[in-house]
Amino acid sequence: MGNTFGHLFRITTFGESHGGGVGVIIDGCPPRLEISEAEIQVDLDRRRPGQSKITTPRKESDTCEILSGVFEGKTLGTPIAILVRNQDARSQDYDEMAVKYRPSHADATYDAKYGIRNWKGGGRSSARETIGRVAAGAIAKKILYQVAGVEIIGYVKRIQNLEGMVDPNTVTLEQVESNIVRCPDADCAEKMIDLIDQIRRNKDSIGGVVECVARNVPMGLGEPVFDKLEAELAKAVMSLPASKGFEIGSGFGGTLLTGSEHNDEFYLDETGQLRTRTNRSGGVQGGISNGENIIIRAAFKPTATIGKEQNTVSNAGEETTLAAKGRHDPCVLPRAVPMVEAMVAIVLCDHLLRFQAQCKTLD
Amino acid sequence: MGNTFGHLFRITTFGESHGGGVGVIIDGCPPRLEISEAEIQVDLDRRRPGQSKITTPRKESDTCEILSGVFEGKTLGTPIAILVRNQDARSQDYDEMAVKYRPSHADATYDAKYGIRNWKGGGRSSARETIGRVAAGAIAKKILYQVAGVEIIGYVKRIQNLEGMVDPNTVTLEQVESNIVRCPDADCAEKMIDLIDQIRRNKDSIGGVVECVARNVPMGLGEPVFDKLEAELAKAVMSLPASKGFEIGSGFGGTLLTGSEHNDEFYLDETGQLRTRTNRSGGVQGGISNGENIIIRAAFKPTATIGKEQNTVSNAGEETTLAAKGRHDPCVLPRAVPMVEAMVAIVLCDHLLRFQAQCKTLD
Amino acid sequence: MGNTFGHLFRITTFGESHGGGVGVIIDGCPPRLEISEAEIQVDLDRRRPGQSKITTPRKESDTCEILSGVFEGKTLGTPIAILVRNQDARSQDYDEMAVKYRPSHADATYDAKYGIRNWKGGGRSSARETIGRVAAGAIAKKILYQVAGVEIIGYVKRIQNLEGMVDPNTVTLEQVESNIVRCPDADCAEKMIDLIDQIRRNKDSIGGVVECVARNVPMGLGEPVFDKLEAELAKAVMSLPASKGFEIGSGFGGTLLTGSEHNDEFYLDETGQLRTRTNRSGGVQGGISNGENIIIRAAFKPTATIGKEQNTVSNAGEETTLAAKGRHDPCVLPRAVPMVEAMVAIVLCDHLLRFQAQCKTLD
Amino acid sequence: MGNTFGHLFRITTFGESHGGGVGVIIDGCPPRLEISEAEIQVDLDRRRPGQSKITTPRKESDTCEILSGVFEGKTLGTPIAILVRNQDARSQDYDEMAVKYRPSHADATYDAKYGIRNWKGGGRSSARETIGRVAAGAIAKKILYQVAGVEIIGYVKRIQNLEGMVDPNTVTLEQVESNIVRCPDADCAEKMIDLIDQIRRNKDSIGGVVECVARNVPMGLGEPVFDKLEAELAKAVMSLPASKGFEIGSGFGGTLLTGSEHNDEFYLDETGQLRTRTNRSGGVQGGISNGENIIIRAAFKPTATIGKEQNTVSNAGEETTLAAKGRHDPCVLPRAVPMVEAMVAIVLCDHLLRFQAQCKTLD
Repeated sequence: MGNTFGHLFRITTFGESHGGGVGVIIDGCPPRLEISEAEIQVDLDRRRPGQSKITTPRKESDTCEILSGVFEGKTLGTPIAILVRNQDARSQDYDEMAVKYRPSHADATYDAKYGIRNWKGGGRSSARETIGRVAAGAIAKKILYQVAGVEIIGYVKRIQNLEGMVDPNTVTLEQVESNIVRCPDADCAEKMIDLIDQIRRNKDSIGGVVECVARNVPMGLGEPVFDKLEAELAKAVMSLPASKGFEIGSGFGGTLLTGSEHNDEFYLDETGQLRTRTNRSGGVQGGISNGENIIIRAAFKPTATIGKEQNTVSNAGEETTLAAKGRHDPCVLPRAVPMVEAMVAIVLCDHLLRFQAQCKTLD
Repeated sequence: MGNTFGHLFRITTFGESHGGGVGVIIDGCPPRLEISEAEIQVDLDRRRPGQSKITTPRKESDTCEILSGVFEGKTLGTPIAILVRNQDARSQDYDEMAVKYRPSHADATYDAKYGIRNWKGGGRSSARETIGRVAAGAIAKKILYQVAGVEIIGYVKRIQNLEGMVDPNTVTLEQVESNIVRCPDADCAEKMIDLIDQIRRNKDSIGGVVECVARNVPMGLGEPVFDKLEAELAKAVMSLPASKGFEIGSGFGGTLLTGSEHNDEFYLDETGQLRTRTNRSGGVQGGISNGENIIIRAAFKPTATIGKEQNTVSNAGEETTLAAKGRHDPCVLPRAVPMVEAMVAIVLCDHLLRFQAQCKTLD
Repeated sequence: MGNTFGHLFRITTFGESHGGGVGVIIDGCPPRLEISEAEIQVDLDRRRPGQSKITTPRKESDTCEILSGVFEGKTLGTPIAILVRNQDARSQDYDEMAVKYRPSHADATYDAKYGIRNWKGGGRSSARETIGRVAAGAIAKKILYQVAGVEIIGYVKRIQNLEGMVDPNTVTLEQVESNIVRCPDADCAEKMIDLIDQIRRNKDSIGGVVECVARNVPMGLGEPVFDKLEAELAKAVMSLPASKGFEIGSGFGGTLLTGSEHNDEFYLDETGQLRTRTNRSGGVQGGISNGENIIIRAAFKPTATIGKEQNTVSNAGEETTLAAKGRHDPCVLPRAVPMVEAMVAIVLCDHLLRFQAQCKTLD
Repeated sequence: MGNTFGHLFRITTFGESHGGGVGVIIDGCPPRLEISEAEIQVDLDRRRPGQSKITTPRKESDTCEILSGVFEGKTLGTPIAILVRNQDARSQDYDEMAVKYRPSHADATYDAKYGIRNWKGGGRSSARETIGRVAAGAIAKKILYQVAGVEIIGYVKRIQNLEGMVDPNTVTLEQVESNIVRCPDADCAEKMIDLIDQIRRNKDSIGGVVECVARNVPMGLGEPVFDKLEAELAKAVMSLPASKGFEIGSGFGGTLLTGSEHNDEFYLDETGQLRTRTNRSGGVQGGISNGENIIIRAAFKPTATIGKEQNTVSNAGEETTLAAKGRHDPCVLPRAVPMVEAMVAIVLCDHLLRFQAQCKTLD
């Protein structure tokens, strides 16, 4: 269990890093949506390893095959199964990690939980699992765009203490993709790239913050109690590897304001539409979207697997040291951007369908 | 939908602020657990309004009645239904809010979503909804304690910029309950109380941070992908009213460290148990509990409903102003403490059962 | 678990026969539906005990109270909680059954599963549990009627070997309700009533078959694989107490025909609508409604609790005999009619919302 | 939606008849179970086409590949993805069926629901979908056998009006597999084979009844209300293509008895174990297994697709005739046997885990 996400637009991922492959089944997709492997590949390419000097050099084309659910270029309404074969698996890099637990990694907890573990490439805990999410996210994005013109754009907001200046209300995908670190603030991006590169050479790693905006989200998405939109987004994003924190709108910073400073006053725009003058709510009030831009942030810790020697313990119960071999990202942030976008898209698409079901049936 | 939480220990809440009552159905509770209304009432009393000068003066005893699922003092394994009747409902306080949308509240989004709204007392968006959660949490806490000695303790960590010094590894429930703001740092608590009281007199409101620790959690709880323990905790906590952010372990602050600084090195304690020297992971690695203390933090914004006059819009589509009547908390934090504890307990109890199912069946 | 049914129109029931009460939470109901306790009471009255000489004489008014989810006569879109208090509980009738297992009843299996059991009135295994289903069914029926003019009519088709002649395509609720056994074939009904009355005097019990038709069901409801409409209906009906078999359309009898005899040929009616000349499919093809009348049948065994002496075993592990005291139905069929209707309505309403979500979003 | 089944042992199938392939993801499988593709292949071979003269001659080896979730011959506790590629797809056979709706098939309802349909080989409505179920069933069977020695054996009980004499309490897999129609009554089997062969030559089709027994099922499996074991089994079996009816124990025939005749009296066997002298309950009382053999029956209609000419309508809305080309089973029963077994196994395995979770946690 725990490998399925979503209530109506529902994805189930499978696969280990070094096995037959990884992928996803998407159930509940509306029929007659035009979709192709090429469209899905665009986001997979933003996620794949080896895309730049600041990502892991593991070479994977991550080419996807749609096994089912699409016929003559259109979705059938039946499950869409998407498969990506594993290619560049160097299992020998993991011989040592088969017996020594990487600090702050999933090795020890998998052993404690399951009594068994595919130690090659991290197995199920590898970020390769997110391939299925990103593929599903590409489809969710297309539905949202087609139905309501929704745009979902993620970007690197901060690397360690280097914070970019980005306006979520106007940022474009082109700006994000204009550099390899995916920070739309070009000056800051350059510094970020240098920092990551230096950290990489030190056999160390580094973290930061991804921000993501969803624009043109219709009012009324989200459920008032447990499935509040911010709760669903929090779960979605906090289920990504290496995430340690989540915020919406004003987030932790908002706790420094008083209510009269923090509240988003309502007004009517020139078209008579209900709007808020500020957006500390981050586009969600009472768990339901209010039509303003949804803005969330996620903290990603520094990659756990590093080349520097660390103290640890073996699965035989002996204290030892480990300097990890293998090809690892010195910083997950640039590749986390499409992952965050995908999870946001899947949540919003699921709630679009939920809204349609409950609130449109009696119309 | 959206009113059910949990997969095996599953709760469904119901009720509006000014209606027949509020409550919860708990499905999947193990049979033969000794439980009484009095035990549940303890946490309900920590949550109820009118408990101190810094909470809303609305007078509700919030006395619970167990309608089903318990027989001669023990759980039956059948659904436990718990009902709390509403008492001190002053609907007339809400006449103005029936037509004027409170800024940053759920009034406008409910109308947009449902085309109808119980405007009395906030209806379903009222914090009274959390009564059912707190009742269910009391049962979850007891199961966890009985099975593994788990202790779950929440407390106010920060009010606006007043931050208490608290050691999550040693804090006690008695320390938390020793003052009305529920901050175990007595000196800081006094300042917090003064600040809240002053804000209340200003007809304004204020926010802060609740921290919660779960001690003695067994290794192996949590699922590796979408239902990672931190993801489930994030959703649980972010589904509470007024929450804007969530962190586990090092959280956002951890992004300032390098991997070699951030990683929790493993060692063997005197009993041969695998432990970590630090706990930046917050007790969870790869989505699965590692046996260390689970430590999370939640940001709560300042209460949206304030007595100060604000600009807003009416449901008739006219710009207007509103100075909210009614009895509202100037700061939700003291009453949010048992809510956070309850949600943490429900998540852990659910995953205890999930672990039992998947990982103990073939033993 | 196992006390929740439905994916989008989702009900959770609670309550034991002799406890605080029984009821239901309905989650996912569309907002703005006009509904009153009086409307719900109509079906509850068809289900309640004591309604005629051929049902149990237990006196329960089964008056329902809507606790939440309805405001000024209309649904809010939030959970609708409905409570019915238990009244005429004569627990002393069950003293003997507290220790002696009734043959073919749930006493022994509850003890085996849970290690505890509310033996008063059968506890959770009592047919009182179906009160919540019937209440929810009344709401589902109204939604279906309002959206598509759907009519759901159940009736007693057979008591032991007395089979009524009924045309499901034209039968009316008035015909069903014209006699106390709920068989629209008046001559046969009289014989059925006599038979049940005679069996009752013998301290024995008797079973039969309920048939149920749903007319005007839109095409396209149902999911092709596990949630085929016939599979969902089968589960719904087989979850009712005392059910032992389920059929749709031609059912078991259809296995005696060849394909060329059994297939429902298509034609176009005068309005150009696709229709079938026969309806051996029972209104469902490939798991999806085809617009013809949905016709199902359910077998209900003779009531397990009887006054005749039977051999059995006590919970202390001793062989003994039991002649059950208490007030029991000699035949569950007349009261099962509204239960079957309710379950059919809940399935169809759930799938109406599911259809709306998946198949209308891209329209 | 609707392509997932099970709550804890949860399967999701995907795939169309003529596409990239079909398969399944199994989530929640206990870790450390030894399993191989060869073991799964045994049941797939019992299901595959072309296995005898009375099944469709379509040639498919249905060779399965485990893509994930198994490592060095043991389950990991992570999702097990199993893929079977489609091979012998003769799409041209379906050219006519692309435009003409087969009577009593899913063609017309898919078009009505989705507005699109993969008409090649029946697409998602093809019995090839059940490959994933049978593969998952093989794993479920192994878990059940390993934990409790459970044996699940299905067989053909009746073809049209030819009914075999079979004792469910003693029948063996060898007896079932000793002939191509899978009826353990050898004399009757011969007649069945002749009948099917004759029907095949007539370009017609035929139906019948599969019976299935589960022996050594532990007491206590099943949930008392909606997820009663018989309700779950009913849904499981009624979700198989061509099923029209379901019975447990005495089924429809039991309605002809009185309660005193029908009830299963309890006694203590020589080991002191609680047993019933008869088994009209079919191994389930009050929705929960009682330790006796679980016995169910399923009615399968004659195959809808036949070579005989029938009247129908085209998707262009014109009345026409169709004599179906393609290679179709004249009788689905022999191949339905492993499908029924698989669905029974999946239900029981799911409830084994559910029992473990709820009822063993406080032990």
